[in-house]
Amino acid sequence: MVTRWKPDAAGRLVTAAMALFEEQGYDATTVAEIAERAGLTKRTFFRYFTDKREVLFGGAEELERRWVEAVQSAPADACPLTAVAAGFAPVAEMFEGIHAFTRVRARIVNANPELQERELIKLERLAGRIGAVLRARGVPDHAALLAAHSGVTVFHVAFGRWVAQDDPAALARLMEESLLELRSVTAG
Amino acid sequence: MVTRWKPDAAGRLVTAAMALFEEQGYDATTVAEIAERAGLTKRTFFRYFTDKREVLFGGAEELERRWVEAVQSAPADACPLTAVAAGFAPVAEMFEGIHAFTRVRARIVNANPELQERELIKLERLAGRIGAVLRARGVPDHAALLAAHSGVTVFHVAFGRWVAQDDPAALARLMEESLLELRSVTAG
Repeated sequence: MVTRWKPDAAGRLVTAAMALFEEQGYDATTVAEIAERAGLTKRTFFRYFTDKREVLFGGAEELERRWVEAVQSAPADACPLTAVAAGFAPVAEMFEGIHAFTRVRARIVNANPELQERELIKLERLAGRIGAVLRARGVPDHAALLAAHSGVTVFHVAFGRWVAQDDPAALARLMEESLLELRSVTAG
Repeated sequence: MVTRWKPDAAGRLVTAAMALFEEQGYDATTVAEIAERAGLTKRTFFRYFTDKREVLFGGAEELERRWVEAVQSAPADACPLTAVAAGFAPVAEMFEGIHAFTRVRARIVNANPELQERELIKLERLAGRIGAVLRARGVPDHAALLAAHSGVTVFHVAFGRWVAQDDPAALARLMEESLLELRSVTAG
């Protein structure tokens, strides 16, 4: 068997998949079509992704890793929500480089209830992980849960504003804005 | 055709479905089995429910209706999160009467990722509806979204504590506690 070197096969597969998802819908697109459009084989696709959904959700682990590490490294005296917000900068940095991809991805996810559900359970798990890190920092259970969910709400709302506009570098600022707005809204 | 009067057919179907979901798992249970256990026909089942999932999620509309009406009727000068919290009492009242059902339901949903995703998208839609009511009350977009999500987070967290304990009447108090804790956690 002749194996040729395929420069950036993963990148080509993502580009092909996103184009097909937009053109003909996510449900109607097969892995075979994605591979063909990328000029690669199905076998190569499965070397990088377990299924077509992973093209859209492959970034979830990196997001979680960055956020969790930042909360773990936050100053010991930071209040719970401030510790959670320590994840905003590294998370924003990750997304800045993939703004164009993320905008297309958001259109695809929002057009498909099953993908939306998947997105929400990823956020729920992210909140669970962040809550666990807060508890490990000594924050009581209930406060940890609420601070983690509030931080993820800030991310979720700011993220929605970010994909709706043109400036890749705006995410960090939008998260800070949403955090201030959340503090104001909950101030009573 | 002989049609016999079936007292509380819907209630019997729910009881049968919940027992089967617990005994053999949600996925493994068919509508035919639910109907048989209840001593009714599949046709009767479909008079009350579109599918077996609706046995678990049939209450979502009532929850949304109660909450939305409460926010709409909140005093005009209530701050956004206080307007959202006006839904806590009517929502708690709805759940108090079905505490035993809700505890079993929570075990079933938590054991099944697909049902968990469904639960989360219902909460997301609930937040969207509450946000829309806040906007109609004159709350700016961004604040409305954050207040609605914060209120739903409070409900979600308090609800999780409520189904883990024995007191049907505790939900209203647990929501108030979680609201206070949220205010404290976000106070900075």
